[in-house]
Amino acid sequence: MPRTVELAVIPGDGIGPEVVAEALKVLDAVTADSDVTFAKTEYRLGAGRFLEDGEVLPEAELAEIKKADAILLGAVGGKPNDPRLAAANIERGLLLKLRFELDHYVNLRPTVVYPTVESPLRNPGEVDFVVVREGTEGPYVGNGGSIRIGTPHEIANEVSVNTAYGVERVVRFAFAQASARRKKLTLVHKTNVLVFAGKLWRRIVDEVSMEFPEVEVDYLHVDAATIFLVTDPARFDVIVTDNLFGDILTDLAGAISGGIGLAASGNINPDGTFPSMFEPVHGSAPDIAGQQKADPTAAILSVALLLTHLGLADAAGRVTAAVRQDLAARTGTRSTAEVGDSIVTLLS
Amino acid sequence: MPRTVELAVIPGDGIGPEVVAEALKVLDAVTADSDVTFAKTEYRLGAGRFLEDGEVLPEAELAEIKKADAILLGAVGGKPNDPRLAAANIERGLLLKLRFELDHYVNLRPTVVYPTVESPLRNPGEVDFVVVREGTEGPYVGNGGSIRIGTPHEIANEVSVNTAYGVERVVRFAFAQASARRKKLTLVHKTNVLVFAGKLWRRIVDEVSMEFPEVEVDYLHVDAATIFLVTDPARFDVIVTDNLFGDILTDLAGAISGGIGLAASGNINPDGTFPSMFEPVHGSAPDIAGQQKADPTAAILSVALLLTHLGLADAAGRVTAAVRQDLAARTGTRSTAEVGDSIVTLLS
Ligand SMILES: CC(C)[C@H](C(=O)O)[C@@H](O)C(=O)O
Ligand SMILES: CC(C)[C@H](C(=O)O)[C@@H](O)C(=O)O
Repeated sequence: MPRTVELAVIPGDGIGPEVVAEALKVLDAVTADSDVTFAKTEYRLGAGRFLEDGEVLPEAELAEIKKADAILLGAVGGKPNDPRLAAANIERGLLLKLRFELDHYVNLRPTVVYPTVESPLRNPGEVDFVVVREGTEGPYVGNGGSIRIGTPHEIANEVSVNTAYGVERVVRFAFAQASARRKKLTLVHKTNVLVFAGKLWRRIVDEVSMEFPEVEVDYLHVDAATIFLVTDPARFDVIVTDNLFGDILTDLAGAISGGIGLAASGNINPDGTFPSMFEPVHGSAPDIAGQQKADPTAAILSVALLLTHLGLADAAGRVTAAVRQDLAARTGTRSTAEVGDSIVTLLS
Repeated sequence: MPRTVELAVIPGDGIGPEVVAEALKVLDAVTADSDVTFAKTEYRLGAGRFLEDGEVLPEAELAEIKKADAILLGAVGGKPNDPRLAAANIERGLLLKLRFELDHYVNLRPTVVYPTVESPLRNPGEVDFVVVREGTEGPYVGNGGSIRIGTPHEIANEVSVNTAYGVERVVRFAFAQASARRKKLTLVHKTNVLVFAGKLWRRIVDEVSMEFPEVEVDYLHVDAATIFLVTDPARFDVIVTDNLFGDILTDLAGAISGGIGLAASGNINPDGTFPSMFEPVHGSAPDIAGQQKADPTAAILSVALLLTHLGLADAAGRVTAAVRQDLAARTGTRSTAEVGDSIVTLLS
């Protein structure tokens, strides 16, 4: 049965457009002979757009994006110290705004150490885990404030907000992932210090674990978790954690897997109320933009996550397999487009 | 001129007493022929004490400890899942209580990758940095709460409190450290998300940097900092950061340096209003307690920090040099006491 998927594409800034071009190339190739068509609408959003007309995320564009079936995003953000961007917070105003408005309560970030990719770790072992990071709560809610700003008496507060509703839905998703994988779930938090949020997370994990008796549950403080990520990353299967700890752990995970040039992610709304958004974990890297130096693999693996989310597991598997083959054959430096072309050629 | 230092000793739980015994052995040996005498008073505090008489930190003992010149602590905390400890939070009630009551606003944690110690990193490079972690504010203040506890409508908040007063004093300390070292300071925060606290930290770093024009200042988001800690840790000299980020980064730093069996720390009150407290970064490791399996090196290096803090730089240097020599000569497994004895023998 022919099916059309409305895909919103946000190439973004820096290397974003380059890696998105390769991701779309692979998406088109892998679905070419299928009955699924991707109808793409591009949205020019990011630091570049802001510098041109002062817009970060106009309401009308947000409303359109909300109607899409899925979103592919490259990377957003300008040069770190660009004074013209100091006032705008592109991260909060665009990226986090999308995650919150589209209720992306699951931020899914897999980590695999491919046998042919050199990890900075001497002996990483067989690493294959996913981090299920909460995406709509915690210290990311933007709930805080300052008084006596700019004076020696300034006080700045940041409030981490955690709800049973919000924690439960992401924890249930994580258990389902673990159940379909190696059946091991590790809650990461800092319950000995953040006692209020910590008690809530532990209670919910205990409760939901009753529904998944086959899943073994473990707990680690966030500081200890970073130790294990470098000394024994193979121990992990599914990690579930809050928004901020998940941010930290997934960058670290990306690094140990051989660089965030390989790290894909999905900002998922499992209920389907709003479109889910797929993006590489890396940033816009303005210093190498437009030079065909960026590795599009993370963006291409994000397409695999997108295909999985849309129920196109077969196509997703073909993309992942092609990426594996490409990684195994890598020698010398290639341009962004060359990597994309190679992966297209390797599609089974 | 003869001098007596009142030293409060808190051996604590698990491997705490074993590593403290070796640390004191080294302290006694290195000061044996000097005019400094350490008058030691032992305080039985920790999970063990709580299980015996229900006390975590009695007011009278806290008052006595406050009068000491310095504190040496082993490790506190019982078995992770001991139900008898569930109600008491030894970490908050004892360790954090001491840090807050004694106004330990600098948590100083050096990381060195010793040439003879195997790091989990393939190629760590020449790593020698210190983390200056804020110790009395941030998400550690215990400011938060829960409503509708135990129901599907529970909300749990955690408030990170940051003050210009608190940030400035730790930032100034960090700049002074950098100025006496390789003159590079990296602020680690998450200013793009935690905008209120982030603006405060950036402003204070900018302001204090005027007083230290010789120090080069860099900024990294906490997620990016974890990447660099595994891909290029040699780039760091002094890192200054908040209480929670510092907790995470120093465990990771300990891991990359070859294990937190080597990581020392000082909880410092630079003003001298209250005694500073020196402790290994590692925990009480109840699983190997009493078996002479623990490495006392972190506790012994904490003695070196203690000596430095007391102005006994020469003795501190002798301890560090002996530890270096011991690490260089390590072969096979040795008992906790054997490591201590070896380091004593190697004291110049
Ligand atoms: C850009 C930033 C707001 C974002 C985050 O903190 O979530 C990024 O680090 C990520 O992990 O996707
Ligand atoms: C035990 C715990 C409260 C403590 C902390 O979080 O500070 C520990 O992890 C540390 O780093 O000293």
